[in-house]
Amino acid sequence: MFNPNDPKLRSFISVDPASDFPIQNLPYGVFSANGLAPRLGIAIGDYVLDLWELAQEGRLDVCEPAVFAATSLNAFMALGPSVWTRTRVRISELLRHDHPELRDNDELRKLALLPMKDVKLHLPFTVAGYTDFYSSKEHATNVGVMFRGKENALQPNWLHMPIGYNGRASTVVVSGTKVRRPRGQLKPPNVDAPSFGPCKRLDFELEMGVVIGQPSAMGEMISESRAEEMIFGFVLLNDWSARDIQQWEYVPLGPFQAKAFATSISPWVVTREALEPFRLQGPEQDPVPLPYLRQARPNNYDLTLEIGLRAGAMNEAQSIARTNFKYMYWSSVQQLMHHASSGCAMNAGDLLGSGTISGPEKTQRGSLLEISWNGTEPLELPGGIKRSFLEDGDSLVMRGWCQGDGYRVGFGEVEGTIVAAG
Amino acid sequence: MFNPNDPKLRSFISVDPASDFPIQNLPYGVFSANGLAPRLGIAIGDYVLDLWELAQEGRLDVCEPAVFAATSLNAFMALGPSVWTRTRVRISELLRHDHPELRDNDELRKLALLPMKDVKLHLPFTVAGYTDFYSSKEHATNVGVMFRGKENALQPNWLHMPIGYNGRASTVVVSGTKVRRPRGQLKPPNVDAPSFGPCKRLDFELEMGVVIGQPSAMGEMISESRAEEMIFGFVLLNDWSARDIQQWEYVPLGPFQAKAFATSISPWVVTREALEPFRLQGPEQDPVPLPYLRQARPNNYDLTLEIGLRAGAMNEAQSIARTNFKYMYWSSVQQLMHHASSGCAMNAGDLLGSGTISGPEKTQRGSLLEISWNGTEPLELPGGIKRSFLEDGDSLVMRGWCQGDGYRVGFGEVEGTIVAAG
Repeated sequence: MFNPNDPKLRSFISVDPASDFPIQNLPYGVFSANGLAPRLGIAIGDYVLDLWELAQEGRLDVCEPAVFAATSLNAFMALGPSVWTRTRVRISELLRHDHPELRDNDELRKLALLPMKDVKLHLPFTVAGYTDFYSSKEHATNVGVMFRGKENALQPNWLHMPIGYNGRASTVVVSGTKVRRPRGQLKPPNVDAPSFGPCKRLDFELEMGVVIGQPSAMGEMISESRAEEMIFGFVLLNDWSARDIQQWEYVPLGPFQAKAFATSISPWVVTREALEPFRLQGPEQDPVPLPYLRQARPNNYDLTLEIGLRAGAMNEAQSIARTNFKYMYWSSVQQLMHHASSGCAMNAGDLLGSGTISGPEKTQRGSLLEISWNGTEPLELPGGIKRSFLEDGDSLVMRGWCQGDGYRVGFGEVEGTIVAAG
Repeated sequence: MFNPNDPKLRSFISVDPASDFPIQNLPYGVFSANGLAPRLGIAIGDYVLDLWELAQEGRLDVCEPAVFAATSLNAFMALGPSVWTRTRVRISELLRHDHPELRDNDELRKLALLPMKDVKLHLPFTVAGYTDFYSSKEHATNVGVMFRGKENALQPNWLHMPIGYNGRASTVVVSGTKVRRPRGQLKPPNVDAPSFGPCKRLDFELEMGVVIGQPSAMGEMISESRAEEMIFGFVLLNDWSARDIQQWEYVPLGPFQAKAFATSISPWVVTREALEPFRLQGPEQDPVPLPYLRQARPNNYDLTLEIGLRAGAMNEAQSIARTNFKYMYWSSVQQLMHHASSGCAMNAGDLLGSGTISGPEKTQRGSLLEISWNGTEPLELPGGIKRSFLEDGDSLVMRGWCQGDGYRVGFGEVEGTIVAAG
């Protein structure tokens, strides 16, 4: 079996070196085209490869073709890691420049390869449960300094486990979905009683989302190797946050309506396998984690992340931060091992948000709260536009990629535009 | 149309006045019998009425019969309140003592009525999302006094909105499911660093669960009347809690693994309609809630709740508390209106826990944390047995019922026995 991550592989489909979707990537998504029902597809360059057509034509013999005529990846994910690998290897083979099977079959190419600009991309999987972590030390420290001062910035538990909370799965939406400004109870410090109205401190949070592809049983703890096997892939995730609603509601049970109105994810799920060449060791963990959280393998990825904001009358998004997934203190595998540690059952389709990804530099902050330092240092944009928090009409774009030698394994984007509370 | 809540109605099936399931109740559940696949049923006295058999035989013409040959109530709930009402009225008619259709049809009775002792009861619906509230003023005050002192017992936000958090849907289980003692990080105040091991302060919480039967759209706020229509029914709910895990993990994002290992519910969903005769006005709300949380109708139910504990070598459960749902400060309708207020989409199958139900008296406390006052006043049981928290082998039973004149509309029970962490 050849290595589908081999940097030397080339496809017969021409792929720009700056494209997110070379033959080394092959991310999964759900698309529809020509008014037909949704199907599973794989991104390659500027095209979507229709897995159902391939299976129907007898070119992809890894499972029942019906699995690919679905509105979500869940049934495919449920088949497990060996099917994921076989599918990826087979698709890689079919797309290789030196493999004639699809390359020289005009009819099949016409059926199975659709220009990405002509398809509609859907939420790629049915979100079984959504959990959001808080695992960047830089982010937790920034927020802590802002609200509790330097001395008490990190809570005592933070260095001992990946702190997280259950989020709301029903409002996870795909990139491009408009985000309505939420309403909620607001009580600024200088007034006596709360009022109800549109959020005034609307923010984003740059995160990665882990997509769980295999379940664990109630009562079962998860080893490192099992956790790796359960991870199907990753998406970009924007954890929209209403800072003013959050501030008033969150004691003592945590964020609730402040995060419940929307969470946006990118449409393509980049597989764990495609990210393997970009693994690296994350920050040193001190104190050494308890045994159930220890990892032997390098636990992070060298994954560049960029945030763009198109505010008000701007014609295009302006980069406002660039950071890297590698700064995360707690890894996705550690988050998953912790999540199951009490006996909590995990399901295929669970989505784990990494927590806001901030880096050590000021230019590497993953939320407007941090960038504008709680509104005290408004962000300055071209044309004299300033932003402390997001305004109606603002569009936020996140991108992410791992840079290889002459190619990149990328995530596309997650975009959301704010519409008025109405 | 006759009134299926009429206290004078009688069934041809003899029902003990102390039974939870007279003809005025007719709760829905999912059962299996004789090795067959699960079906939807209704409890009547000591019997389960098989809705699929009735539909197959042309006696229940409210929807496709296949809806009743299901492993969950979700598809039936999705049909909406007018179908729920039509079904309830029709079943009431079929079970009346003066209606010959089922009463005098030996063959149909044999097919459709199964002794409850012969069936297995399943989780009645697929839990789409699980949210847990904190809406008893007495409970919140007790916990506040214990951990923050009398002066700061209630947090400033508590009187302004139903405080809640997202729970974990994957571990909601039906009554009778064994509950494995969870493991987690424990850091007693007198040690420097946490350790990982079995929870030492395992507790229950007596709650009611609201079962949402109709969805709301993302961005949609919910009026009182719409909230009423969305509520399909209620179950008993035991929100198992690991107090020591919770204490160390919950700042600042709320309970996570301390609640994620198990939540038990009763197998029968008592409909909102069956509870109508028992509505009453709950505690006065001061300050008056913000307009989006105001209710015109009486917002509570006169619903007696009892907790039994069979500890160690005891032969039977001993009552350790008796309280009433009517003490709840925030109502289920208010919880639902608040839940959707940010634009959070609700789904059929969402489960909203009321929060621990404690009353004003010491004998009305809904958790062992309160009963034993954080372990300082151990509960004394027959045979010299004492309990500060739950031990392995302990069995906890919750019951609930609305008392009518000569009948009761009851919930059966939710039982769970603790097994060792292993």
